Amino acid sequence: MSDVSVSLGANKYGKAENRVVRVLRDTARHEIADLNVTSQLRGAALTDSYLQGDNALVVATDTQKNTIYAFAKEHGIPSPEQFLLRLSEHFVREFEWIEGGLWQAEQYEWERIVVDGSPHDHSFVRKGQGTRLATVQVVDAATHVTGGVKDLVVLKTTGSEFAGFPRDRYTTLVETDDRVMATSVTARWRYLPEAVEAGIDYNGLYAEVQQVLLETFATVHSLALQQTLWEMGKAAIQARPELAEVRFAMPNKHHFVYDLAPFGLENPGEVFYAADRPYGLIEGTVVRDGAAPAARAWLDIPTSI
Amino acid sequence: MSDVSVSLGANKYGKAENRVVRVLRDTARHEIADLNVTSQLRGAALTDSYLQGDNALVVATDTQKNTIYAFAKEHGIPSPEQFLLRLSEHFVREFEWIEGGLWQAEQYEWERIVVDGSPHDHSFVRKGQGTRLATVQVVDAATHVTGGVKDLVVLKTTGSEFAGFPRDRYTTLVETDDRVMATSVTARWRYLPEAVEAGIDYNGLYAEVQQVLLETFATVHSLALQQTLWEMGKAAIQARPELAEVRFAMPNKHHFVYDLAPFGLENPGEVFYAADRPYGLIEGTVVRDGAAPAARAWLDIPTSI
Amino acid sequence: MSDVSVSLGANKYGKAENRVVRVLRDTARHEIADLNVTSQLRGAALTDSYLQGDNALVVATDTQKNTIYAFAKEHGIPSPEQFLLRLSEHFVREFEWIEGGLWQAEQYEWERIVVDGSPHDHSFVRKGQGTRLATVQVVDAATHVTGGVKDLVVLKTTGSEFAGFPRDRYTTLVETDDRVMATSVTARWRYLPEAVEAGIDYNGLYAEVQQVLLETFATVHSLALQQTLWEMGKAAIQARPELAEVRFAMPNKHHFVYDLAPFGLENPGEVFYAADRPYGLIEGTVVRDGAAPAARAWLDIPTSI
Amino acid sequence: MSDVSVSLGANKYGKAENRVVRVLRDTARHEIADLNVTSQLRGAALTDSYLQGDNALVVATDTQKNTIYAFAKEHGIPSPEQFLLRLSEHFVREFEWIEGGLWQAEQYEWERIVVDGSPHDHSFVRKGQGTRLATVQVVDAATHVTGGVKDLVVLKTTGSEFAGFPRDRYTTLVETDDRVMATSVTARWRYLPEAVEAGIDYNGLYAEVQQVLLETFATVHSLALQQTLWEMGKAAIQARPELAEVRFAMPNKHHFVYDLAPFGLENPGEVFYAADRPYGLIEGTVVRDGAAPAARAWLDIPTSI
Repeated sequence: MSDVSVSLGANKYGKAENRVVRVLRDTARHEIADLNVTSQLRGAALTDSYLQGDNALVVATDTQKNTIYAFAKEHGIPSPEQFLLRLSEHFVREFEWIEGGLWQAEQYEWERIVVDGSPHDHSFVRKGQGTRLATVQVVDAATHVTGGVKDLVVLKTTGSEFAGFPRDRYTTLVETDDRVMATSVTARWRYLPEAVEAGIDYNGLYAEVQQVLLETFATVHSLALQQTLWEMGKAAIQARPELAEVRFAMPNKHHFVYDLAPFGLENPGEVFYAADRPYGLIEGTVVRDGAAPAARAWLDIPTSI
Repeated sequence: MSDVSVSLGANKYGKAENRVVRVLRDTARHEIADLNVTSQLRGAALTDSYLQGDNALVVATDTQKNTIYAFAKEHGIPSPEQFLLRLSEHFVREFEWIEGGLWQAEQYEWERIVVDGSPHDHSFVRKGQGTRLATVQVVDAATHVTGGVKDLVVLKTTGSEFAGFPRDRYTTLVETDDRVMATSVTARWRYLPEAVEAGIDYNGLYAEVQQVLLETFATVHSLALQQTLWEMGKAAIQARPELAEVRFAMPNKHHFVYDLAPFGLENPGEVFYAADRPYGLIEGTVVRDGAAPAARAWLDIPTSI
Repeated sequence: MSDVSVSLGANKYGKAENRVVRVLRDTARHEIADLNVTSQLRGAALTDSYLQGDNALVVATDTQKNTIYAFAKEHGIPSPEQFLLRLSEHFVREFEWIEGGLWQAEQYEWERIVVDGSPHDHSFVRKGQGTRLATVQVVDAATHVTGGVKDLVVLKTTGSEFAGFPRDRYTTLVETDDRVMATSVTARWRYLPEAVEAGIDYNGLYAEVQQVLLETFATVHSLALQQTLWEMGKAAIQARPELAEVRFAMPNKHHFVYDLAPFGLENPGEVFYAADRPYGLIEGTVVRDGAAPAARAWLDIPTSI
Repeated sequence: MSDVSVSLGANKYGKAENRVVRVLRDTARHEIADLNVTSQLRGAALTDSYLQGDNALVVATDTQKNTIYAFAKEHGIPSPEQFLLRLSEHFVREFEWIEGGLWQAEQYEWERIVVDGSPHDHSFVRKGQGTRLATVQVVDAATHVTGGVKDLVVLKTTGSEFAGFPRDRYTTLVETDDRVMATSVTARWRYLPEAVEAGIDYNGLYAEVQQVLLETFATVHSLALQQTLWEMGKAAIQARPELAEVRFAMPNKHHFVYDLAPFGLENPGEVFYAADRPYGLIEGTVVRDGAAPAARAWLDIPTSI
């Protein structure tokens, strides 16, 4: 021990992973929204909760949880972005010492079960193809909103090559002009503040961006996963004027051609071993030219998978 | 220590979780099969590998792995059941001291990415809705085959009640005539040996059984998850004459009505907390009357989720 | 559909993964037991809950949960085995139509944090080395008890070889007289009924068996993982007269010598790549000679990892 | 599509989760280091790999992997920090267009198995208590080094209260002066650049900081998890002059007193339900006064659990 003096740096606190399911049952045709919501608050006045254990200004994490569930009833969940915006406005407005925070959501999509050819009114099967993401960040009196998707697993059996890379003492990789390329896309897109202000059809945008990402992955002849990432981001921004930038993390999920030569068999790209680890990890951001940068929008939001 | 004497009881050994991806690329329209295959062998003659470390009869787990990948090339993977049958026949026939074994597979389904309205030739997105299961068991000179599905997550927002249960000192649960019911279906169906012998359209059957399970879940007015399970199994067996029995493990994934009364809000089945643990765990088997029982078919196959 | 008739086969139901933490605070030196408990019931009379949704005899899974927590208070948790025995006796005695069931527990061990050289009275750090297991099975009017451990991860850097195995067309594995051997031990031991009857120091036995397993793994010069498994089981049974049999599932967690030759480096067993999948999967049971067999003791208990 | 123009923003790429195990076998008493290493590179010159798929400057992720394994042989792994420093120096020096990158490691600790009272020479059991962390960041011509720990799970059965928090419409939480407090500590500490320069006993420091964190958790009477976090960070910085700051993410793993009143039982802090989700999530950084700030040190390093 000693007389070393220390100070409190960056901090935030809240309640994580509130699993809220909202059912709209106004008619016999029910609708559901299934979210995992995290709420965290920041404020210089909270310093004493760390230094002294003084909780006088600590909006309890339990209160944050209650608010999430109450708001699901009071305001509904038209989209994760709008739901998080509501929450953020509440905490910043209701408690003057709360300067900002980070609100995050995952949304799990459900499809109606088809019975005799018709989608059922109140029975659903989880879609399982990608998880929708959203965040709202309030910092320095500005509000930033992102949407996104993760766990969107795609694969192409041809139309991908990798060659022309430098070789050093530690390079053994053989060049290829035809390989399997597979990845699990994590993409987060930041909305232009003026678009947020004007109002966005977040659900329609999500569907469209997801489709654009898939189509671009499918149709780009890939010289590198980096290039595919770039083309996917470019296509998304070109498709939707609301997007300021798209940030990707894409593992290169290696599929190795299994060596069948010892068994007297050829293997012209037919049998693969799908490896777990290690994997390539390609990250990049595609930015709309002219969009004002907003580094703080991404504060504490994981960059990677 | 002591002169206590011991013997070797039940045993098997092999290579687990071989991730094999098979691409059919005979035409520009590629097909893929994506499997996780486990192969394990049994035989009285293997006792000495345990007792003495004598490996003279131990078909190496590495050899089992190589065989899986080689067979993917030589025989293709028309269905997981047929692929496992091929493997089982090989090991039992090729090595006279191998009396049997257990072969298991998971299959991950992929959909073609739709580009400009048309399914793409060689680009896929993982379906993510349920994982297909298959096993082949060879024991006591008989071969048993099962198919199945797991992680098929379904939910209904009404049409489910739970009441009439006995009450004792430890009972606090309130009866309900309208609740959310959600589960993640694990179902394994055993094929009748005569159907296996005659040949089965395993892929068509899988699609049909999955659809029957979903439809039944959707349309049965549920008095208990047990009853829903029973109706699902009955419908599957009635739909497909190849099925001898269907074994289910279905967690009751509780969705609790969040208490909003402290906030002056009503909550008539609109806002739920989706709990992780604990969960109900309902298991049951539905058996076709007249089908010969085959307890050994299920040897070492997990009953539960 | 059709007039196909079906019947209910094997079934059970209950509440899974009840996370109960029991604190003994009679003195300033607190004790804790941290368990994950699953309770499931069986009985022919429960058939109508499946066939008709008639819940008149369904001891609610919520009631089973309440009972677990109430019993933690009323009877304490001296050991997981004793706690499950209490639960099993209660359900079978209290509800005449409950013929049996399966009760399972995981126990997470905690160590006291050492402060100034002394173990603290009420602050703990999770041990993280193996998870303790226990089950009680009541079936056909008999009660069977097992203990066990899982996730006990061990590795030896030498003293392991693998050679002498048969070679066929698909064999490429090279023999080795010195390899890294690593596994994650899952072991379940069945107690002799007469020992259960007489009373067992379950906690002392667990500590001793775990130590015997570790010592045997360490000291046996291994010719195959099968042989190591056998020696571990034999040593456990020789150490403790209460054990009827020990059932193991041991993955062979492969550590491959990384090929450094392309870089002009030798690699005499120094640098390894630790692979995830596939892995060897070795299973076996070591049985005390003369112990009465009890196949039903293992009903629905997972054999594998 | 359109004539929208876009640019490449932040990016990096590499190979993730290389599982490398290094054995020192110079004497009969072997030593092991077991790491999970991720290497990622950055450089403005890499832009064309994204924009054009031009790989001329792309040090292949496979080459990065090979380098990791080769360096484990050539330079050994005295500590994760030193190993990552070596890697970072290599890539930045060897490839002039590589401006920097992020290197990350997890280290899994092993204990010697004790046989007849003596630690064994070459047999180990995985410790399982916390995972060691390290990162090296090279950015803007500066090198930043952090150490850390995650999954260090601690619990105290008393000595924790939570009261005095504000109440609004959505507050229902009851104040408590005695609760169970449990968390899983993730802590990352940044080393002062001058200490890195001078050389640090990273292994000794890790052991000491972990012990200081545990002791502080144990002995601080907690008014809030925030306060415990602060005291833990302060104690670490006071204990080791090499530390510039410590960043924590600590989930409040709720243990709820189970309501036994309906069963006529009291529950004075004896029986708890350990919940999974939601959980509190408390984050904060403790900074040595006078240490130069280094925001870029934390670039892309996850803040949370």
